[in-house]
Amino acid sequence: MLQIKVTENDFSLSFKNYVFIYHSTKQPFIHVGKGQAKYDMHFGNFKIEECLDEKLALTEFELLEQSPNNLLVKFNKSDLAFVVINFTVINDRLEIIFQDYTEGLNRVWVRIKAEEEEGIFGCGEQFSELNLRGKNVPLWVSEQGVGRNKKDYVTFQADVHYKSGGDWYTTYYPQPTFVSSNSYWCHVDDSYYMEFDFRNKSYHELCIWHIPERIIISKQESVLDVLRNLTEFFGRQPELPEWVYDGVWLGLQGGTQIVLDKLAKAEKHGLKVTALWCQDWEGKRITDFGKRLFWNWKYSQEMYPNLPETIKELNKKGIKYLGYINTFLATDGELFKEASEKGYLVKNEKGEDYLGITEMDAGVLDLTNPGTVGWIKNIIKENMIGIGLSGWMCDFGEYLPTDAVLYSGESAEAFHNKYPAEWARVNREAVEEAGKVNEVTFFTRAGYTGTSRYSFIMWAGDQTVNWGLDDGLASVIPAALSLGMTGFGLSHSDIGGYTSLFGIVRTKELFMRWAELAAFTPIMRTHEGNRPDECWQFDSDEETLLHFAKMSHIYTHLKPYLKAIVKENAEEGIPCMRMPYIHYEKDKNLLNLKYQYLLGRDLMVAPVFEEGKTTQKVYLPDDQWVNVWTGEEYGQGTYEVDAPLGKIPVFYRKESKYKVLFEQIKNL
Amino acid sequence: MLQIKVTENDFSLSFKNYVFIYHSTKQPFIHVGKGQAKYDMHFGNFKIEECLDEKLALTEFELLEQSPNNLLVKFNKSDLAFVVINFTVINDRLEIIFQDYTEGLNRVWVRIKAEEEEGIFGCGEQFSELNLRGKNVPLWVSEQGVGRNKKDYVTFQADVHYKSGGDWYTTYYPQPTFVSSNSYWCHVDDSYYMEFDFRNKSYHELCIWHIPERIIISKQESVLDVLRNLTEFFGRQPELPEWVYDGVWLGLQGGTQIVLDKLAKAEKHGLKVTALWCQDWEGKRITDFGKRLFWNWKYSQEMYPNLPETIKELNKKGIKYLGYINTFLATDGELFKEASEKGYLVKNEKGEDYLGITEMDAGVLDLTNPGTVGWIKNIIKENMIGIGLSGWMCDFGEYLPTDAVLYSGESAEAFHNKYPAEWARVNREAVEEAGKVNEVTFFTRAGYTGTSRYSFIMWAGDQTVNWGLDDGLASVIPAALSLGMTGFGLSHSDIGGYTSLFGIVRTKELFMRWAELAAFTPIMRTHEGNRPDECWQFDSDEETLLHFAKMSHIYTHLKPYLKAIVKENAEEGIPCMRMPYIHYEKDKNLLNLKYQYLLGRDLMVAPVFEEGKTTQKVYLPDDQWVNVWTGEEYGQGTYEVDAPLGKIPVFYRKESKYKVLFEQIKNL
Repeated sequence: MLQIKVTENDFSLSFKNYVFIYHSTKQPFIHVGKGQAKYDMHFGNFKIEECLDEKLALTEFELLEQSPNNLLVKFNKSDLAFVVINFTVINDRLEIIFQDYTEGLNRVWVRIKAEEEEGIFGCGEQFSELNLRGKNVPLWVSEQGVGRNKKDYVTFQADVHYKSGGDWYTTYYPQPTFVSSNSYWCHVDDSYYMEFDFRNKSYHELCIWHIPERIIISKQESVLDVLRNLTEFFGRQPELPEWVYDGVWLGLQGGTQIVLDKLAKAEKHGLKVTALWCQDWEGKRITDFGKRLFWNWKYSQEMYPNLPETIKELNKKGIKYLGYINTFLATDGELFKEASEKGYLVKNEKGEDYLGITEMDAGVLDLTNPGTVGWIKNIIKENMIGIGLSGWMCDFGEYLPTDAVLYSGESAEAFHNKYPAEWARVNREAVEEAGKVNEVTFFTRAGYTGTSRYSFIMWAGDQTVNWGLDDGLASVIPAALSLGMTGFGLSHSDIGGYTSLFGIVRTKELFMRWAELAAFTPIMRTHEGNRPDECWQFDSDEETLLHFAKMSHIYTHLKPYLKAIVKENAEEGIPCMRMPYIHYEKDKNLLNLKYQYLLGRDLMVAPVFEEGKTTQKVYLPDDQWVNVWTGEEYGQGTYEVDAPLGKIPVFYRKESKYKVLFEQIKNL
Repeated sequence: MLQIKVTENDFSLSFKNYVFIYHSTKQPFIHVGKGQAKYDMHFGNFKIEECLDEKLALTEFELLEQSPNNLLVKFNKSDLAFVVINFTVINDRLEIIFQDYTEGLNRVWVRIKAEEEEGIFGCGEQFSELNLRGKNVPLWVSEQGVGRNKKDYVTFQADVHYKSGGDWYTTYYPQPTFVSSNSYWCHVDDSYYMEFDFRNKSYHELCIWHIPERIIISKQESVLDVLRNLTEFFGRQPELPEWVYDGVWLGLQGGTQIVLDKLAKAEKHGLKVTALWCQDWEGKRITDFGKRLFWNWKYSQEMYPNLPETIKELNKKGIKYLGYINTFLATDGELFKEASEKGYLVKNEKGEDYLGITEMDAGVLDLTNPGTVGWIKNIIKENMIGIGLSGWMCDFGEYLPTDAVLYSGESAEAFHNKYPAEWARVNREAVEEAGKVNEVTFFTRAGYTGTSRYSFIMWAGDQTVNWGLDDGLASVIPAALSLGMTGFGLSHSDIGGYTSLFGIVRTKELFMRWAELAAFTPIMRTHEGNRPDECWQFDSDEETLLHFAKMSHIYTHLKPYLKAIVKENAEEGIPCMRMPYIHYEKDKNLLNLKYQYLLGRDLMVAPVFEEGKTTQKVYLPDDQWVNVWTGEEYGQGTYEVDAPLGKIPVFYRKESKYKVLFEQIKNL
């Protein structure tokens, strides 16, 4: 399957008739070097700098072995540095295996041949850019940032006060994997810091601060097949428990009575609620940032006395109860004491528990210690699943400092990115060991390679409660789509966003628009945000309640369709929220369509993401489309459609087998 | 004078018993490489990025020749790259001459041995930092920026709206020359982009985006001697015309009548005025930024009818008239047409006049063309000196785009930094050719190596009209001191600052404090700023007028002293405004004293640079000091002294021969 063309000064390598590798003296396939990285972390926000000692173009090459499925090449620069690469076909994929290299190297730049018009997608959860062609993409697990745009005043304030403004590329969930519109995926099998540079016309340059085991490329006939193949390789998310789709997951807090009162109010207004999500099930505290949780993973007798009984009562009414967990243990909680004594926490260079990582005093679970893993799994099984929780927010995972000392002896610089995937694995195994995969679920924020196999659901993290493209409502759309192109097909977001800072509060309109969007995602869940009292909530007024109730009816009405697309994601790896491009590959307009998506095969959703707008521009690819609200039919084209509050622009495919279901939406 | 210690794996080189060079396999003296620079200029503000192709540590070495004053060394990395360096003593200086090297190299990193506690000064005009130890200092001529602090809201706005916020290191006048508190100076003889990295404990690393001719080091017994030697090498500024010290240079504009009316008002209030400075002598226009000048270097008949006559009248009264010039020619001016026709303007890659460099349509003088130089010198001689101007602001010099095409064929990337020094040379030669060195002067904004030889006076450019440390009143102090440590000893600033943007306007207090500072600098000059009508002026109220008049009396009273220190600068290169450290080298506290200076040998000035303050913290080194206002005596120590408006903290040395002059200040 490999075709090799060699002259004295260059060679090219094709796999399945696509040229992936080109090497010449002037355009060397590989550079190598040595450098030292400097990571400066502030509450999960990283400033990363490098001192590059040496960088060498390996201009010379020698073919050592050659067979139809195998090419062994030594690249070198004089006698100074060499890398022996085995280009080989394994399981129908091209693997670029780093077989041998000069001792001491810790930087590598590899070039994959590119075309100028290629679209590039994936790299994990990307909030600001969907098509990454033309960008240099750093890949490092971190806070996503507040504002995420250096020209934005929110970002500026967050930077000045908390070093937390972020940038267009900062993300909880990067992954060194991309999908090309030329129908291939490419993955670097490593976890050190990387930058994927898609700015050059003729090549993609993958810079890795480590010599990786291998780079894997899979070429398929279509982008749909690329996604099937990618998810077969990395693992897919399973189907979700039946209860998931039966209404809103209502984020409430404040203790049993407050929560039940709000639930009663919601139900009185016809809101369909399938679960109460109480992030403060374990208690809370107030910090500078707002209301924060008490990180000790056991229910709070004070706030939720006899929680197991309350849960049973709720369950009888058909309502599930969800909780919260993260990777930390508050120093004033009893679990911290136990973990500390047992050596289950990440250590600093002095051998002490590594504190000061977050704004609250807390230790961080050392997931390289099998003792820690067993212990925390038991806590999940006993304190959470055991008392009747049907799921939880599985928060954080981005904060492992690079100078931490780990039980396994592995470098924290290497384990930093792996941490969130391990955290998802721990939670997944706890659910599996409890035998509850069909009943219990959880949703994660951080991720990396491996997360798609272990986590059930992603949520888009902490959006600012505004209309900012890079960190507000709009940003959750490319986030879901890019995750889908990385093999994670189940995403949703906090309705109304989370972060309220610098006087920015959630407005009624924002809440309503976000609720409309959420009704057309796999999961519909609210969050009161970090400043609940100042931000608009689902029950802040009658109109909002009724609007929200209507949205919950639309969502539950879609259950058969949602179940089917979640099943498709589980079986084929085709994401629930997906880039329209994957079904209309001939239509290059779709390569850059960032704020519009297909929910499954048949529903085109074009959320209103700007304040004060009552119409929305929509692009429809070549198909027969029907407006769910008006029944109007459309062919290919760009349209400005009516979009008053309550009527998010949604179109179904006329030939859909769910046509009748979709037709009913307007009557709900 | 060279001492060399060699083993198989390393060598060290001392010059005058100071180890400057150390080389070993692990700590190589030199790295070399190849890279491409990318310069993105927006109205003189640069975003500079690099694509580094290769970087090599030249770990191996071979001594080729050795004599007491000479060491020829070949550094290499295998057969890949080499540099032959001749370490040689010429005129009592150590020169590091790049004699030969591998073709194609265009990056070099050279390490000069360092001590951790060393103080590092100079690198041209540095507005935010005086002691550069611990900093990485980019050296590129540019706008200095508005705000110059990425945590500052003014900077943020300037960045967002004009890409012009700048940073702590952005400066009109960098110079690849530094002075060490270990009594040596070091200079890189090149003009390409550089970074001097003073962050490492054991070496200073000089990164140059070109292979330079040579690096020069001069070792002396004291920092004072370093300055003498440095200025002997680079050239000193001459003494100034006698009229300079006879009062304020009053910046006025608006046409003859307005100017004369304001002058009358000033004189009525006892203000000593030695010169009117009318930047709009050639006419003006209004832009988005504020009031701007008409860049056509000929007096405006409309605004200043019969200007030569007016000047004569003023001169009779003992008042000089000063004008303005810069490197541009407005496209709608007649001089542009002439210059364009004659090919005197910088061209773009298409061979057209390079326009669009500034916010106004203008061409830029190609100073590599001898024709241009002769032509513009004639304009200066005829249109400026010829009509009676006694001086001018010699503005700009930072805007040469790196992709410009120059008459000489020299790369604009190399000429960019040289441009301001050439611009100063042109002006200097015009004055000299007119035979007016004793009568006519000018003051420049931009600079580079060579400026100290050609320009008469620097001014600190366009400060923001506020109290910001990085771009307000305070910043002109380290600016003057660092210039002094680079060999330019005559600096002053716009009283009250210049840039009013984003609603920031000059206040009365700011104007008064700045006037107090200016009375203790070599030149006392006002500028109405870019938004004169909104900013506080010298005549905005009676109190300001009287305060300002008093300051003008103090300034003129100091004339004998000022003349003496300007003479000292001309003869010895000891700057007028100087770091106290150079006279008290044993006192390491003085290494980081940023906002306090000696005016000459005998006056310690500690300006109030914070809003609303009426006392000021002062540090006095070991000497006998007398407070000019109270007569109180002080020894070494830190003091919080009274500093009401009108009484800037100033101390004279009790043993000064100007004691009587200083004692009289309090009675003025």
